[in-house]
Amino acid sequence: MLKLYDFLLSGNCYKVRLLLSLLGVEHELVAVDLKAGEHKKTPFLQLNPFGQVPALTDGDVVIRDSQAILVYLARRYGGADWFPEDAAALGNIAQWLSTASKEIGNTIATARLHYLFGTPIDVAAVEKQSYAVLKVIDEHLATRQWLECDRLTIADIACFPYIGLAADGKLSLDAYPHIVAWIDRIKQLPGYVGMPGL
Amino acid sequence: MLKLYDFLLSGNCYKVRLLLSLLGVEHELVAVDLKAGEHKKTPFLQLNPFGQVPALTDGDVVIRDSQAILVYLARRYGGADWFPEDAAALGNIAQWLSTASKEIGNTIATARLHYLFGTPIDVAAVEKQSYAVLKVIDEHLATRQWLECDRLTIADIACFPYIGLAADGKLSLDAYPHIVAWIDRIKQLPGYVGMPGL
Repeated sequence: MLKLYDFLLSGNCYKVRLLLSLLGVEHELVAVDLKAGEHKKTPFLQLNPFGQVPALTDGDVVIRDSQAILVYLARRYGGADWFPEDAAALGNIAQWLSTASKEIGNTIATARLHYLFGTPIDVAAVEKQSYAVLKVIDEHLATRQWLECDRLTIADIACFPYIGLAADGKLSLDAYPHIVAWIDRIKQLPGYVGMPGL
Repeated sequence: MLKLYDFLLSGNCYKVRLLLSLLGVEHELVAVDLKAGEHKKTPFLQLNPFGQVPALTDGDVVIRDSQAILVYLARRYGGADWFPEDAAALGNIAQWLSTASKEIGNTIATARLHYLFGTPIDVAAVEKQSYAVLKVIDEHLATRQWLECDRLTIADIACFPYIGLAADGKLSLDAYPHIVAWIDRIKQLPGYVGMPGL
């Protein structure tokens, strides 16, 4: 059976749980004890030598990194709606996988790490950068329901968790009504599951 | 004609130039004047509202982010060897696109930014993290010629530039012979082009 090596409070693990639920793929969750440093030791390092959750096994297949796991699941279990053939559509979706990893990961998700787990950051700088990222995404969503392709794709699944968890990082979404409406649309999806903070 | 909005010294722009050359795709380079802040103003912000090079236009298609541009070009111009159908192969390649953006971007590429452009960093911390990332990649390459799929893929193209430019960040590759051999293999490819520092 497909196994997700998981940590409940990780937004990156949650995005995989969300896609598994939306796709209705049976799976087993294997809790990784981050407090005990289990992710920095064998045997976990054999799944992801960079020592981070999530990681996924599906038979012989091993995939690390939440964005890559979304790509795998969309292609393997999702059909053409979830993983289009068209180069432009793929490129457009891939943009947001990078945004999730880089722009959102280095700002909004980092603010949350600080307040939840004590990671030291320059709070003022991270706040400013977070709001700059939210502004770009809000303007992008002003003219569309979903990030790309006029439908739900893994672009939305990749970006949603840490934006939806903004309050954990003491960030307000009040100035971003299009983001708030997009979050509501995601929460209405059949098969939607939440996590603590959402 | 395909246009790449480009900055000569950017490793992220270079990885796109390299793939275009390997694929033999005709294109025009449009230099973006980063010193003058052209990337933070219209009209460039219409191509990439996050204000970063590279961006690419191909007819009506607009793609931002170097990793996403590699995905687009591989699917559009590369054929199945460059963009496999298989979910596991796609997921395995996608892992390294994330590694290029996150693990390499936040460490080895950041050290280079510091020494070339004066970006303030915690030098000792970034050095330590950079060598930890290089160690993982060197061990991965100990048993294979290419990062995934037993052949050159966009995984290699995405990760190669900032690793190849490690010396710009005063990082030594001497302890990583498998990486050095992999860099040599890439430099031997028909259609290979370099950049300053490579």
